[in-house]
Amino acid sequence: MVQIQSSVDAAKQKADPNAARDANVKGALARIKHKFIVMSGKGGVGKTSTAVNLSLALASLGHRVGIMDVDLHGPDVPRMLGLSGMLALGPNRKLNPIGYSKNLSAVSIESLTSTKDEAIIWRGPVKYSAIQQFIGDVEWGDLDFLVIDAPPGTGDEPLTVAQTVSDAKAIIVTTPQEVSLADVRKSINFCKTVKMEIFGLIENMSGFACPHCHTRIDLFGSGGGQKTAIAAGIPFLGQIPFDQKMVECGDAGVSYLQLNRQSPVSAAFDAIAQKMAGLLAAG
Amino acid sequence: MVQIQSSVDAAKQKADPNAARDANVKGALARIKHKFIVMSGKGGVGKTSTAVNLSLALASLGHRVGIMDVDLHGPDVPRMLGLSGMLALGPNRKLNPIGYSKNLSAVSIESLTSTKDEAIIWRGPVKYSAIQQFIGDVEWGDLDFLVIDAPPGTGDEPLTVAQTVSDAKAIIVTTPQEVSLADVRKSINFCKTVKMEIFGLIENMSGFACPHCHTRIDLFGSGGGQKTAIAAGIPFLGQIPFDQKMVECGDAGVSYLQLNRQSPVSAAFDAIAQKMAGLLAAG
Repeated sequence: MVQIQSSVDAAKQKADPNAARDANVKGALARIKHKFIVMSGKGGVGKTSTAVNLSLALASLGHRVGIMDVDLHGPDVPRMLGLSGMLALGPNRKLNPIGYSKNLSAVSIESLTSTKDEAIIWRGPVKYSAIQQFIGDVEWGDLDFLVIDAPPGTGDEPLTVAQTVSDAKAIIVTTPQEVSLADVRKSINFCKTVKMEIFGLIENMSGFACPHCHTRIDLFGSGGGQKTAIAAGIPFLGQIPFDQKMVECGDAGVSYLQLNRQSPVSAAFDAIAQKMAGLLAAG
Repeated sequence: MVQIQSSVDAAKQKADPNAARDANVKGALARIKHKFIVMSGKGGVGKTSTAVNLSLALASLGHRVGIMDVDLHGPDVPRMLGLSGMLALGPNRKLNPIGYSKNLSAVSIESLTSTKDEAIIWRGPVKYSAIQQFIGDVEWGDLDFLVIDAPPGTGDEPLTVAQTVSDAKAIIVTTPQEVSLADVRKSINFCKTVKMEIFGLIENMSGFACPHCHTRIDLFGSGGGQKTAIAAGIPFLGQIPFDQKMVECGDAGVSYLQLNRQSPVSAAFDAIAQKMAGLLAAG
């Protein structure tokens, strides 16, 4: 399915507001305690890995977790979780998310397209509708956490999430080098502009131990994320080292966290998940 | 400058076609021999580094080169080239690109915004106009090559380039791991859908030599790009190894190619630039 829809058509559709859809969206969101949007200034910083592993870490703490992939042009969540198959229509004519485990389920555009390698060519306004449907037309049920994986940058998808999920908190992922940090400052300003609370910043791919001589190599520098968080006055959530096993697990669709419980990477994810879970205790 | 412009307004603007702008765009493109759009399926694969270093390599061969940064949400070209300052209005009321050297000049959204860290929040149709202005309202002059750095994915920016620059050839950049390759296949299908010629595929960050023990480490796997090119029936342009000095040079805004002439990375870029320059001889 490749669609090129003109913005004029889409604007017409928007001029006829769908009150039923808005009610669906509102009803679905009311049953979810905490919503996080995982953002990044630029791509390739491990944003989806972070969203997936934080979801896994929260689920392993016993919480009910949903992960919603709104990266419409590059939906990687199903591949990283090893999920395949299409979303099925359940009772109430709503789509059932794909279950990964008893308390973790996922929705992605990839679960709605039959040919995985085709490009989604959608102009902005169509994305708005798609994301609203991901919330309102999906049977998420009662959740403690919804983790939303947004595409990099400050385009239509995060803007739609900010407008639709008014109490979403942003987790911003970056790598340590300046080219990434320049873009992450844009994400921070984006959140301020659209009045979205920033839960904190994560510095990913921060340091790497050579698997042969065990010397530490700063592939992408180190410490830049923490400095940026301090300068912007936002919480710093921690550093996650680079581990090429993470790349392998992502490709194979197996859980890095389950296979590498004792690694520094797993410890970093667990610590951040516990900060997120702390919100439940706080109310 | 933060702008949130509704798609309805933008659609209205488009309904009043600007014939003068179209003529400007056509006139500017007629003076440029070969146009390349550097694309990637996902971000963080080194697409901008590749666009910048290919432009430097072509310029060092003596060709007249322009680089146009249409990554509106994450414009990294000026930083990587160490360019600052704003675009100035020249004679004919056109903007002058920023000169990097005698035969390499650049245009980026960053050279039009006064505050670098503010987010550009533009819905799709506004991007269309911005990119048209980058071509038609800029005094590019006579060029052998225009290298266009597109944002990752298959969104509004590459679509606009495909519609505006009908003879642009695509260079697709990927890293070797499967999560990237899945996205790159979408870029390949995008080009086929919009009938854009694919010049070839580059596998970036392909292998890394530990600077301490010199053992080769496949940070992101290896060989996946070549396999994907063969499977898709498109030319494979070569592998570029990972070098953390490339990250450092990008951050510092200095030319990696000039400082590291004898490296395997520079040799890889030179070889690809020579393939591009071969088009001039072919007519």
